[in-house]
Amino acid sequence: MEAVDVTTPRGRLPHCEFDRRPGLARAALDGRTAIVSNPTNIRWLTGFGGSLGWVVVGAERAVLVTDGRYEERAAADLAAAGLDGVIELEVRYQRPEVVDAVVEAATALGGGPVLAEDAHLTHAAWLGLAGRLELEPAGNRVTALRRVKDPGELARMALAACIADAALAEVAPMLDERPTEADVADELALAMRRRGADGPSYETIVASGPTFAARPHHRTGSRTIVPGDTVVIDVGALVDSYHSDMTRTIVVGDPTTEQLAVYELVRRAQAAGLAAVRAGVAAKDVDAACRGVFREAGREDWFVHGTGHGVGLEIHEDPFENTTSQDTLLAGDVVTVEPGLYRDGFGGVRIEDLVTVTATGCAPLTHLPKDAPCLRSPPTT
Amino acid sequence: MEAVDVTTPRGRLPHCEFDRRPGLARAALDGRTAIVSNPTNIRWLTGFGGSLGWVVVGAERAVLVTDGRYEERAAADLAAAGLDGVIELEVRYQRPEVVDAVVEAATALGGGPVLAEDAHLTHAAWLGLAGRLELEPAGNRVTALRRVKDPGELARMALAACIADAALAEVAPMLDERPTEADVADELALAMRRRGADGPSYETIVASGPTFAARPHHRTGSRTIVPGDTVVIDVGALVDSYHSDMTRTIVVGDPTTEQLAVYELVRRAQAAGLAAVRAGVAAKDVDAACRGVFREAGREDWFVHGTGHGVGLEIHEDPFENTTSQDTLLAGDVVTVEPGLYRDGFGGVRIEDLVTVTATGCAPLTHLPKDAPCLRSPPTT
Repeated sequence: MEAVDVTTPRGRLPHCEFDRRPGLARAALDGRTAIVSNPTNIRWLTGFGGSLGWVVVGAERAVLVTDGRYEERAAADLAAAGLDGVIELEVRYQRPEVVDAVVEAATALGGGPVLAEDAHLTHAAWLGLAGRLELEPAGNRVTALRRVKDPGELARMALAACIADAALAEVAPMLDERPTEADVADELALAMRRRGADGPSYETIVASGPTFAARPHHRTGSRTIVPGDTVVIDVGALVDSYHSDMTRTIVVGDPTTEQLAVYELVRRAQAAGLAAVRAGVAAKDVDAACRGVFREAGREDWFVHGTGHGVGLEIHEDPFENTTSQDTLLAGDVVTVEPGLYRDGFGGVRIEDLVTVTATGCAPLTHLPKDAPCLRSPPTT
Repeated sequence: MEAVDVTTPRGRLPHCEFDRRPGLARAALDGRTAIVSNPTNIRWLTGFGGSLGWVVVGAERAVLVTDGRYEERAAADLAAAGLDGVIELEVRYQRPEVVDAVVEAATALGGGPVLAEDAHLTHAAWLGLAGRLELEPAGNRVTALRRVKDPGELARMALAACIADAALAEVAPMLDERPTEADVADELALAMRRRGADGPSYETIVASGPTFAARPHHRTGSRTIVPGDTVVIDVGALVDSYHSDMTRTIVVGDPTTEQLAVYELVRRAQAAGLAAVRAGVAAKDVDAACRGVFREAGREDWFVHGTGHGVGLEIHEDPFENTTSQDTLLAGDVVTVEPGLYRDGFGGVRIEDLVTVTATGCAPLTHLPKDAPCLRSPPTT
């Protein structure tokens, strides 16, 4: 495996277009006053990355409310986003006072019922606010704005993907040295950090051998990896809160005929999925493209999950590519294509790339080779 | 700094009392049928640690519903908890079918309105279920059961705390070598893993120098640590999903008179907080004990957060120790006591221990010395 060298310094990444986002949000909210409570939406809208915050958006003003722990960081985050003065900052001492300030701001920005994020607020929190304000559901109006990425966002995700590519290329040879799954995950985390990532973008999955590799969401553990194993490695990096997501499957030692056959089938299904990605396509048709390859080969029952999902500030976000998806792909969506086959006793194979959806197809953000499940040898099939 | 050597092998830890938990839940739910959706409550009740699951608890039967990705793992987790046969497992292919299965199970277990976790379900999810079942709020009936820890839980948290103690004792000397904040966090993660932790129990905070150490929830970054800095290190380990939580503050090089004075004030406030902890005490009185020391010294405005919180399967859980808390401490609660003082230009000092509440006081789970903000020298104050 070889990977692109990562040379883009963080400081030279293009800016994310924070200045456009309050306007995009106002348009999506029809100029009505809204309470944004989903922390990922707040991160997108304001740059603020703390764990406790609320944003009240009105037709003219917007206010970020947080607590005393975050006073300095919230001011710094707003300034870094170029939004100081555009989004006002209110700091209260503790949680109950923060909610008071949110209610006050929503009342001040006013004008009819206030929209609130019913897909984020708990039912109990909704009822608490509804006792003090007239609420209406905002649905996913703000969440939906995060789907199409701007150049700054794409640059961060591309850098994250390159970092994970390079880390896996560096670490993969250790699979020959009987490491534990956790050893591999640790080395990947270090290798990503050395290349400038803020950390892993999720808990790295290293799923090995006939039992654990058969679990798509195996919890990486202390099992020792041995020759003959299929090893599913699902790894991503985090850059400025943006995630990457990639899976490669490696056979330790010489692959068996069955391992090669299953690998090749997954590779073909993944190629079919990638070929189906294009703006305007129904997300479920990308799933159907992968699933069709497995069905023809009589292996559909080994495919126990959907084909992929959107990625951005969250590791799993809209759109989702599965049999029941109602989503249509948009130019600027960033999605995974990750079919896999799993069977207890055999192990598993998954191949996953992260791609940007374009008008005519897709552009990969992950670049690590996937022709064969081997470490350093040329393709053997 | 020296720390207790960690020698308890994971395999010798006492079992968590999973067998008692379905009965505890039924009693808390008055024998009514309930839908448990909070993943942490599901982990506590069944041992299942996947990201998508629901438990329906009835007076006689209980069912765990998950999707195809988790079939193997859910069965293994139930078996490891000794609950196979006690909690039935239902696997459906995708999310919408999982919700169908939950509704079917709740109907089958039936008998009047179904309790659901209004403090966890989103408002939108609640309304979706309420269109298919008659719902009533469960409040935090199941969550509250997690407060008092059993011997297996305490053993895991004690081991996690020991591991973090030992890791920080090992890593602290590198502060003299001009590392970045992220370097220190990386080394702590590795040191905890080497000692048997599953990983860090939250994103380690390494907050250094006059600006960043002044932010209680600073995001660890690329700043180089230099002599003269106060460095606030907030670190915990994860063992079998149980968290530890500890903070120590170190001055790099020779502390100034002001640094020593602020450190000593925080140390006294923390001692006052620890002395106030006892079963039956109002949690806000622990906060008041710390706050009173700061008030007397005219420094209350440097203390911008609450005094502490419960810890267990979540890093922040009930009870919370702050000025508005309504909680009363229970024997078996595990809580932090973590006052701090922060000022931009000075930096910050926080000292945090994790303790078990007892009938007569508290027993510390963290043991790293805290007499002085120095690395290897004897106390200098």
